[in-house]
Amino acid sequence: MHIFYTPDITQNTYTLNEEESKHCVRVLRLPVGSLVNLVDGKGSFYTAQITSDNPKKVSLSILKVETEFQKRNHYLHIAVAPTKNIDRIEWFLEKATELGIDEITLIISDRSERRIVKEDRLNKVITSAVKQSIKAYHPKLNDAISYDAFMKIPVEGDKLIAHCNDNEGKDYISNLVKPNGKYLILIGPEGDFTSDEVNIALNKGFKALTLGDNRLRTETAALSVCFEINHLNR
Amino acid sequence: MHIFYTPDITQNTYTLNEEESKHCVRVLRLPVGSLVNLVDGKGSFYTAQITSDNPKKVSLSILKVETEFQKRNHYLHIAVAPTKNIDRIEWFLEKATELGIDEITLIISDRSERRIVKEDRLNKVITSAVKQSIKAYHPKLNDAISYDAFMKIPVEGDKLIAHCNDNEGKDYISNLVKPNGKYLILIGPEGDFTSDEVNIALNKGFKALTLGDNRLRTETAALSVCFEINHLNR
Repeated sequence: MHIFYTPDITQNTYTLNEEESKHCVRVLRLPVGSLVNLVDGKGSFYTAQITSDNPKKVSLSILKVETEFQKRNHYLHIAVAPTKNIDRIEWFLEKATELGIDEITLIISDRSERRIVKEDRLNKVITSAVKQSIKAYHPKLNDAISYDAFMKIPVEGDKLIAHCNDNEGKDYISNLVKPNGKYLILIGPEGDFTSDEVNIALNKGFKALTLGDNRLRTETAALSVCFEINHLNR
Repeated sequence: MHIFYTPDITQNTYTLNEEESKHCVRVLRLPVGSLVNLVDGKGSFYTAQITSDNPKKVSLSILKVETEFQKRNHYLHIAVAPTKNIDRIEWFLEKATELGIDEITLIISDRSERRIVKEDRLNKVITSAVKQSIKAYHPKLNDAISYDAFMKIPVEGDKLIAHCNDNEGKDYISNLVKPNGKYLILIGPEGDFTSDEVNIALNKGFKALTLGDNRLRTETAALSVCFEINHLNR
């Protein structure tokens, strides 16, 4: 079944934009009467039928809607420093969307090699993974923010920071948090967080996290956190 | 500390090949007397000193060797169908090497869209991840093989197959295997294994595996198996 992302859907009919319409008619070659699925990114999963195959504006009639489609039993927010090579963050976003994530913030820390990111492009990566993996909820990508500014935002739930400084007091995720929680987890840049940054977090009530003995790249560490939290909650 | 991959090391001295020598002298600009690390891919981790900085053949003198460096407590062999877009398998190999894997086989199944792979190129990806993540053991990449031929090879240890056909009788890895084991896990192509292929495996004693409700791409499924086995064994 073909799936379209329709965040602005409100009525029991919907018209695909020009790009999606062209894709629907010229590429997928779907005729009038074909059934398709729509997701609004807010938890609703629709079954719809094509009522007009105008290649500039395909009309759809909604037949069925499921709300809170595959609603998750926890909330995961990962704040990660963007990698020098942005492809690595792009694949993290794709994989995290497949595995399950709710919110992502790119934080610019002292040792971040990259300080500018194109959120539009990264959002396209997420949307494409949402469609490919059939998710009714679209993960939220926040604008990039400095570490210090991010640390001033109040946060509910469990707060963890993964860093490579000495292991003292670090523990595994499964020993630090419980299932069905709300989690914020910080992942540092290639050169790791500075000890000042780590101390700021610890003073704000973040707990120090270990991901084991492997030396992981930033994006691999972030994905491994995503895996562990979903594993803990399944 | 800079690390070099030296699979053919035998003596207490070693000469880097022309490419590595050039990298060492012209790029890293390491002078005589500098300390470097070497890994042989078979478990030995060396500390060595540069005794000649000839940019065509750098000579090294071994100062120290640690055998069975970070030896793993289990053996993981993943057999996965190569993806249509080979970049996806390349990143799987990089990430699996970072997280910990021992052996990989690319299996050509009925629905594999890609039937030819360049093992040399894929091995370069693995070697680069071995160096980046400081692994003394180099994961073994077997030549691509047809599903039927692969199924004729006798295997010790736990045998699991991940497929998307009906869920009956499937279970999570953690319920199917114990820690410190030897595991072979099959991951199907984009279009999944055929039911004949699944049945062949089940008749050979493979157990059916579920990775949860998420719809995962081939390479994401393979990586999540890698996460889960390493998680179980840590």
